[in-house]
Amino acid sequence: MASSAREKKKITVADLAREAHVSPATVSRVLNKRYDLVTDATISSVKAAMEKLGYEVPEAIRLKTAARKERPTILVNIPDGNLFYSEVIHGAISSANSHGFNLLSSRSPLDAACMPDFLQMIRQLKIAGVIVLNPLQSSQLLQINELVPVVQCAEFDEESGLPFVSIRNRKAAREATEYLISQGRNKIALINGPSAYRYSRERRQGFLEAVENAQLTIPRNWIVDLPEINYDMAYSVICQILNSDPIPNAFFTVSDTLASAVVKASHAFHYKIPEDIMLIGFDNTEFSYTNTPSITTVSQPRFQEGFTACEMLITRIMSPEVTVSSIFLETELVLRETTG
Amino acid sequence: MASSAREKKKITVADLAREAHVSPATVSRVLNKRYDLVTDATISSVKAAMEKLGYEVPEAIRLKTAARKERPTILVNIPDGNLFYSEVIHGAISSANSHGFNLLSSRSPLDAACMPDFLQMIRQLKIAGVIVLNPLQSSQLLQINELVPVVQCAEFDEESGLPFVSIRNRKAAREATEYLISQGRNKIALINGPSAYRYSRERRQGFLEAVENAQLTIPRNWIVDLPEINYDMAYSVICQILNSDPIPNAFFTVSDTLASAVVKASHAFHYKIPEDIMLIGFDNTEFSYTNTPSITTVSQPRFQEGFTACEMLITRIMSPEVTVSSIFLETELVLRETTG
Repeated sequence: MASSAREKKKITVADLAREAHVSPATVSRVLNKRYDLVTDATISSVKAAMEKLGYEVPEAIRLKTAARKERPTILVNIPDGNLFYSEVIHGAISSANSHGFNLLSSRSPLDAACMPDFLQMIRQLKIAGVIVLNPLQSSQLLQINELVPVVQCAEFDEESGLPFVSIRNRKAAREATEYLISQGRNKIALINGPSAYRYSRERRQGFLEAVENAQLTIPRNWIVDLPEINYDMAYSVICQILNSDPIPNAFFTVSDTLASAVVKASHAFHYKIPEDIMLIGFDNTEFSYTNTPSITTVSQPRFQEGFTACEMLITRIMSPEVTVSSIFLETELVLRETTG
Repeated sequence: MASSAREKKKITVADLAREAHVSPATVSRVLNKRYDLVTDATISSVKAAMEKLGYEVPEAIRLKTAARKERPTILVNIPDGNLFYSEVIHGAISSANSHGFNLLSSRSPLDAACMPDFLQMIRQLKIAGVIVLNPLQSSQLLQINELVPVVQCAEFDEESGLPFVSIRNRKAAREATEYLISQGRNKIALINGPSAYRYSRERRQGFLEAVENAQLTIPRNWIVDLPEINYDMAYSVICQILNSDPIPNAFFTVSDTLASAVVKASHAFHYKIPEDIMLIGFDNTEFSYTNTPSITTVSQPRFQEGFTACEMLITRIMSPEVTVSSIFLETELVLRETTG
């Protein structure tokens, strides 16, 4: 039957019910969007009846019955809300979208208390693969990998045998410290992150290598492992260092957020940057270039790390026969005002 | 049969197959974790056989068959990676976890091109409810709400009739501008965000109200609607303003990121803050207090917005009979160094 405005007016709930082989009450439920009371199959039958009789299918029913190809979903887990992760996720989204995957992110420490719910969520949502940015042990990574393919990003445990994308943290930290030494600085403090993270342990190593190669002696209190990347904690610790004697003539911090605390604390103690105190941060986040003075930093390719991790994961998902190799991406020292 | 080390050794694949009423090949598949080739019911049968015969159940099978209560999943959609959203998500996670919900976030403009995949994802993952931070039109919001309960956060369209949590943007902007005027500033520029956002339109209104009440005349080029909250764009525009004549003696920016661009540009043009140029930002993100000088800002209760939105959503999900009302949360002007 052809559709026309005149005919449409005539079509009743009873007509639709008869055509769909359901009761008029059922048609009413569908029209009233009581989808909790009817099955998907019933909605489809009523929709087919509407189409056959030339009744305009309401948008809600059209949407409800629209058959779209299911897109597999990738999950990125980040430990906290640090700005660093935002650009990693951006990169992962670009990769996922280009392959027709959804990308969702979860924020969880993935410790023993959280892991059971995380694993359950992967099963329940039929997640296709996981990118992990947490500092997990091999056994935890393998627990997730029992369910779906895993790729490690930034943090990694080689023992797991699972592929990762990261940077050479030790080398980057050594070169940054060497740059400070090359600028005549011989009293250098390190503001580091939590030692649970590989990046923190490796950057500390790199810092110590440069300092030892130059035969510099660093007081014990100038090497600080903060329990988290936290501006307020960093500010307090740096003020303590600047309030003691001797004081450093340079700082290397493992995050631009921490570097901005050095700028602030130096200002509070009336030290000039870079004349009195030189400073290098890490990551090249907005904190480094929006700061006044702009902060010299080790640029970490965050977008590329996320993008690469997602490409690797999709290969693991789509081509399980392929062996996906781990990759180290390059860092760069970006010279700005805090090193003169 | 009781379990003992001696007996365990004797248990063969054939024994397990017989006990589970499946073929030895099937038992091998289960043991080799080829879960793609066997049903969940088969895995459970093999596991039951293992337990009965005293064969130690491998961790992978234990995990695979672990019966955990399904946790409903809430989705938060954010338009981009702005630092503002990070703390909103933090608040939403706190609420979700306390109610035994998962919380995942997606980043999408939710424009016409993205919406079909977004709706499909909600159906496919059986999402229980959605918190939207995008500036959506009523029809788009209702399209999502056809599928699952929606709560609007920060941005909202009253026409949709869907509950929201937000702040009084116009009032906050008017009061910030009035503060600059009360400090003797009479030449005030506004660096605003994209007018697609309600916050941007309302803060502009509030700014203009304060300026008009004080009978100040503002050159047209001192009111800038940036196409996105972007430091580089803001820096260029502010440099143009400072490179013209007359120049402002104060700036109000709708984001702390943009405010940090004012600090940087003022520095480049050798203007002193706050002596020559006073400055107020918005949001009270890390950018405001890590900056040197620290930036006076309108503190937006980001954590609380996320927490409240999630509480409202869970009420909508769990108690559909309850009418959830919209809420405006309070803002505060936090005075720091950029206003003297």
